[in-house]
Amino acid sequence: MRALVFDVFGTLVDWRSGVTEAFRASGVDGDPAELADAWRARYRPILAQVNEGSRPWGNFDELHLQTLGDLLAERGAELPDAQRHRLVRAWHELDPWPDVRAGLEALRRRHITATLSNGHVALLVNLARHGDLRFDCVLSAELVRAYKPAPAVYQTAGALLGVPPAEVMLVAAHPSDLAGARSAGLRTAFVDRPLEYGSGSPGRDDPDADERVADLHELAARLRPQ
Amino acid sequence: MRALVFDVFGTLVDWRSGVTEAFRASGVDGDPAELADAWRARYRPILAQVNEGSRPWGNFDELHLQTLGDLLAERGAELPDAQRHRLVRAWHELDPWPDVRAGLEALRRRHITATLSNGHVALLVNLARHGDLRFDCVLSAELVRAYKPAPAVYQTAGALLGVPPAEVMLVAAHPSDLAGARSAGLRTAFVDRPLEYGSGSPGRDDPDADERVADLHELAARLRPQ
Repeated sequence: MRALVFDVFGTLVDWRSGVTEAFRASGVDGDPAELADAWRARYRPILAQVNEGSRPWGNFDELHLQTLGDLLAERGAELPDAQRHRLVRAWHELDPWPDVRAGLEALRRRHITATLSNGHVALLVNLARHGDLRFDCVLSAELVRAYKPAPAVYQTAGALLGVPPAEVMLVAAHPSDLAGARSAGLRTAFVDRPLEYGSGSPGRDDPDADERVADLHELAARLRPQ
Repeated sequence: MRALVFDVFGTLVDWRSGVTEAFRASGVDGDPAELADAWRARYRPILAQVNEGSRPWGNFDELHLQTLGDLLAERGAELPDAQRHRLVRAWHELDPWPDVRAGLEALRRRHITATLSNGHVALLVNLARHGDLRFDCVLSAELVRAYKPAPAVYQTAGALLGVPPAEVMLVAAHPSDLAGARSAGLRTAFVDRPLEYGSGSPGRDDPDADERVADLHELAARLRPQ
């Protein structure tokens, strides 16, 4: 395995806590964690519209602003533009899960490491700086202008790193992302993030993954030569 | 200045020493440093062919293999393919100038830092790993499929980092690169690398640059708020 590419939202960073906190600060009526979940639930449908061509390319800031507007309109909630932009900006300042900073360092010793996120490059750079996360390279769906699980995103990652797909492993907490990577010829590692949706998170697993681990330290141990 | 983007070959890494060493090891007849210079001299013309459209896109490995073949043919030198690939590979394993590792760290504290090189992403990743250089992001002409000084390369860098051109500074040792960046609306810093071509290097300067410095530590000092 020459290169490891990492999903970011949910896999490396805890988007829900940060977005919940931002809703709490915003003063929008309602349970801030429920608002965070409802906002996130609008993520997949709008990305699918981009991939189908029924919506022009937009980066995460643009799509987040759109889905936030839809969510607030649905609930009849008013919110000034500056506050909306503050909520969109919250996605740039999310904390990593506790194992991530040191786990990435351990994995980087023997493997090329890169993000492979639907988030745009500027957003990923801000997240990496915020969490002091070191990657060898920041790769994003933005470079392809298609969103995961479109095969081109995974294939381009390998091509840009100069590594054949079979020597690239996607590390992700989401079975749909891992399945997309396998369809594109990558190897896969499922990392369990049982708190992605808080204490009521659905149990997840991916029996087809090459590795199934509890955190990045376990992944580093598994990939170490025996 | 929110983002600093760095030229790499000559500015951050000492290509001539590494390539000279590789020629010495290859057994090709002639002065290895002169061969390194002659190889490098074929760089600008072939990039210009790509930018003009008279040659299809090729990454640095492909172009280096081509220009190496041209150079060897011109001199009637034989060299097996494996040796040619070893010379091409030498460009992935060049040492940074002595100030670079710590200088980049100092600059990264207050600025987003990224490569902005004509080298392809895989090559830049290998160089960064080889020299233990930390960037927030690896940006390359490869992402645009045009080579510096084409304006699109500089403009895309700012767009991907989410920073307006006037808040992006190109750091480079080459006045032509700096002039290209200014044409695209970037700020510029000239860093003097008087040993890029060995002890006989031509004196260079760029009176139009916003900053003119001897190394990255001096740049960090200049950009520090007064």
